[in-house]
Amino acid sequence: MKIAVDAMGGDLAPREIVRGAVAAAGEGSAEIILVGDQRRLEEELALLHPSGRIEIYHTDQVITMDEQPALGLRRKREASIVVATRLVKEGRAEAVVSAGSTGAQMAAALLILGRSGKIQRPAIATLIPTLKGPKLLLDVGANVDCRPEHLYEFALMGNLYAARVMGIPNPRVGLLNIGTEACKGNEQTLGAYNLLRGAPLNFIGNVEAREILFGETDVIVCDGFVGNAILKFGEGLGQALFTMISREVNKSLRSRMGAALLLPALRGLKKQVDYTEYGGAPLLGVQGISIICHGSSNARAIKNAIKVAVRCVNQGLVTALGDLPGASEERMVKGCQSN
Amino acid sequence: MKIAVDAMGGDLAPREIVRGAVAAAGEGSAEIILVGDQRRLEEELALLHPSGRIEIYHTDQVITMDEQPALGLRRKREASIVVATRLVKEGRAEAVVSAGSTGAQMAAALLILGRSGKIQRPAIATLIPTLKGPKLLLDVGANVDCRPEHLYEFALMGNLYAARVMGIPNPRVGLLNIGTEACKGNEQTLGAYNLLRGAPLNFIGNVEAREILFGETDVIVCDGFVGNAILKFGEGLGQALFTMISREVNKSLRSRMGAALLLPALRGLKKQVDYTEYGGAPLLGVQGISIICHGSSNARAIKNAIKVAVRCVNQGLVTALGDLPGASEERMVKGCQSN
Repeated sequence: MKIAVDAMGGDLAPREIVRGAVAAAGEGSAEIILVGDQRRLEEELALLHPSGRIEIYHTDQVITMDEQPALGLRRKREASIVVATRLVKEGRAEAVVSAGSTGAQMAAALLILGRSGKIQRPAIATLIPTLKGPKLLLDVGANVDCRPEHLYEFALMGNLYAARVMGIPNPRVGLLNIGTEACKGNEQTLGAYNLLRGAPLNFIGNVEAREILFGETDVIVCDGFVGNAILKFGEGLGQALFTMISREVNKSLRSRMGAALLLPALRGLKKQVDYTEYGGAPLLGVQGISIICHGSSNARAIKNAIKVAVRCVNQGLVTALGDLPGASEERMVKGCQSN
Repeated sequence: MKIAVDAMGGDLAPREIVRGAVAAAGEGSAEIILVGDQRRLEEELALLHPSGRIEIYHTDQVITMDEQPALGLRRKREASIVVATRLVKEGRAEAVVSAGSTGAQMAAALLILGRSGKIQRPAIATLIPTLKGPKLLLDVGANVDCRPEHLYEFALMGNLYAARVMGIPNPRVGLLNIGTEACKGNEQTLGAYNLLRGAPLNFIGNVEAREILFGETDVIVCDGFVGNAILKFGEGLGQALFTMISREVNKSLRSRMGAALLLPALRGLKKQVDYTEYGGAPLLGVQGISIICHGSSNARAIKNAIKVAVRCVNQGLVTALGDLPGASEERMVKGCQSN
C-alpha cells in the first residue's frame, strides 16, 4: 500500500516528517511517497539509511501556515499538499498524510477528491486524550455555521470511524450541549437532538463540555466553531497552567526539590495526554483518506499517522462513508416538528 | 445600603451563605437582608454572634438546581430568589446576591426587574482567572442563539462593567473567534466584528480561545452557548488533570514525596485561580443589580460577592447601563454591508 506524505508541511518539516515516514516504511506499515523538494528530501534520507520502500515526488511549492488556504491553492497548483492529494485521486497512493496548513489540506481534499456520497459537509475529526483513552471530537473547524442535519452527518461519520478504525464496538455517540436534558440548547442542538434520537447509532444524548475529558462518550459531535474554540481553549489552559505552576515552584527551594522528585510522574502524565501517540485523525466525508496531523508533529506522530492511514484503507473507510444515508432537509424539518 | 441575599440558594446553603453575609455585615460593607427559612436562618445566626446589621425576610420556598427555572418561577411565587429580587424592585434592597440556580436567578431578574434601557439581551458575565488577574467573559449562558447586535451589546455592557466596577481604564475588548484575522469566523462573529469596529470602545479585534487565560484582553464577548461550553470545559479539564496527576503521583514513593514538598506551591496556585476571591459577577442588562455566584460558593465567596454588589451600586451601574445606546437591527445590516 502506498501512502503520500506531504513532506514539506508542519513546523518540523521536512526533517521530522521524513524521519517518521522512514520509520513507518521500515516497520513495513506502507510504502511511502514523500512529496516535496527533491534535494532537501534526499539530504534528509541520506542521514537515515532507510530500509523500507520510499520514493520522492518532487515539487518546490508549499502552502505555509499563515497563507490563506483558498488563495494558496489557487496560486500554488503544485504545492506539496495539492500534489499529494492528487496522487490519491489518481490512484497512485491510497491516502495522504500532512502536518501542514489544515485549511489548505481540507480545501485540497474538497477540490480534488470531492465530497463523499450523500455527505453535505465533511468534518475535521480530532482525537482527544481522556481519562479513558482517546475519544473522537468532531467537527473542530471545517464548518463554522452548521445546521442540525450537518451535526447528524458528523455523528454518522464519527460513529463509523470509531467503530471501524478505532475498533470501538457500538460507540457511544453524544451531542455537545450546554445541559444534559433534551430541552437544553440552542436551535442548532435542539434540532440535532431530534434527528439523532432516530439515528441508526448508539446515541446517548446531550453531553456537557465538562464531561469530554472523563471519556465516557466515544464520539462527541459539535459545530466546528464550538469544537475549535474548545480545542484551542484546552491548549491555552495547558500552557497557562504550566506558567502558573512554574511561577509558584520557582518561589522556593523546597518546591523546586518537589518538582524534581515529581519529574517521572509528570512524564507519565505527558505520555497520557501525548497526541503523538495517535498521530492524526482524518477529514471525514471526502472521497479519499486525508489524515490531518498536528502542526508540531514529530517523527513519532507522523509514523503513527501513517499507521492510522493504513488502518483507514484496510477498513474500507471511504467506501463505508460513501454508503452512509446522509441527512436530508426534509428529515430535519420533520424531526423538529415532532417535538 | 441594604443587600438582599438569597440564603437558601447554593450547594452550601444556608450555612455558608449566612456566614458570608455575617462577615460582610461585620466589615460594615452593607446591611443584609437574609431571605429564607426563618427558623433555619436563626439557628445559623445563633452560632455566629453577628456584629453587623442583619435582618431575616422569611420564605419557605426555594427553587432547586435541578428544577426547570421557568417552571419553578411559576410554581413557587415565594421562592427565595423571587422574594430577594422583588425586594430590589420595591426599593427595599439595592441589590440581590445568590448562589442558587442561575437560570432561576436570571428568569426572576428579567421578569421582576425587567430589561435595561435599549439592551435587547441581558448577559451573564463571569470573571475568569488569568495570568494577568481576573478578566471578564460574557455571555456565558443567558443567550444561546445570538445575533451580531447582541454580541455588540455584550461588548458595550462588559466594557462599562470593566471600567466602572473592576476599575480598568479603557478596557481592551475582544471578540472570541476561531482566528485573529478580520475575515475569520462564522456569520455571527463576522457580523459582530463589523459592528464592533465602529463601537465607542477600545476594540482590539478577534481573540482566539487559547488566548483567554493569558489575560491580555480585559473583556471577551461571545455567544452564550460558546461561553458556557468553554467555561464547563475548563472546569472539566481541571478535574481531569487532577485525576491524571493523582494517578501518576500515587505510583511511587518518590512522587508522593515530591507532591508533599510541592504542597505550598500548589496552594499558591489554587489561590491564583480561586473564584472565591471575586465572589461573583452580575447579570448585565437588567434594571437592578443581581450578582450571580458559583453554585458551590463558600462564606468567603459570598462575602466578596456582597462587596461586588456594593461596588456596582456605588458606581451607578444600573443607570449607566440604562444610558447605553444599544444596537439596532439597521446598524447591524449597515455594518455587514460595508465590508
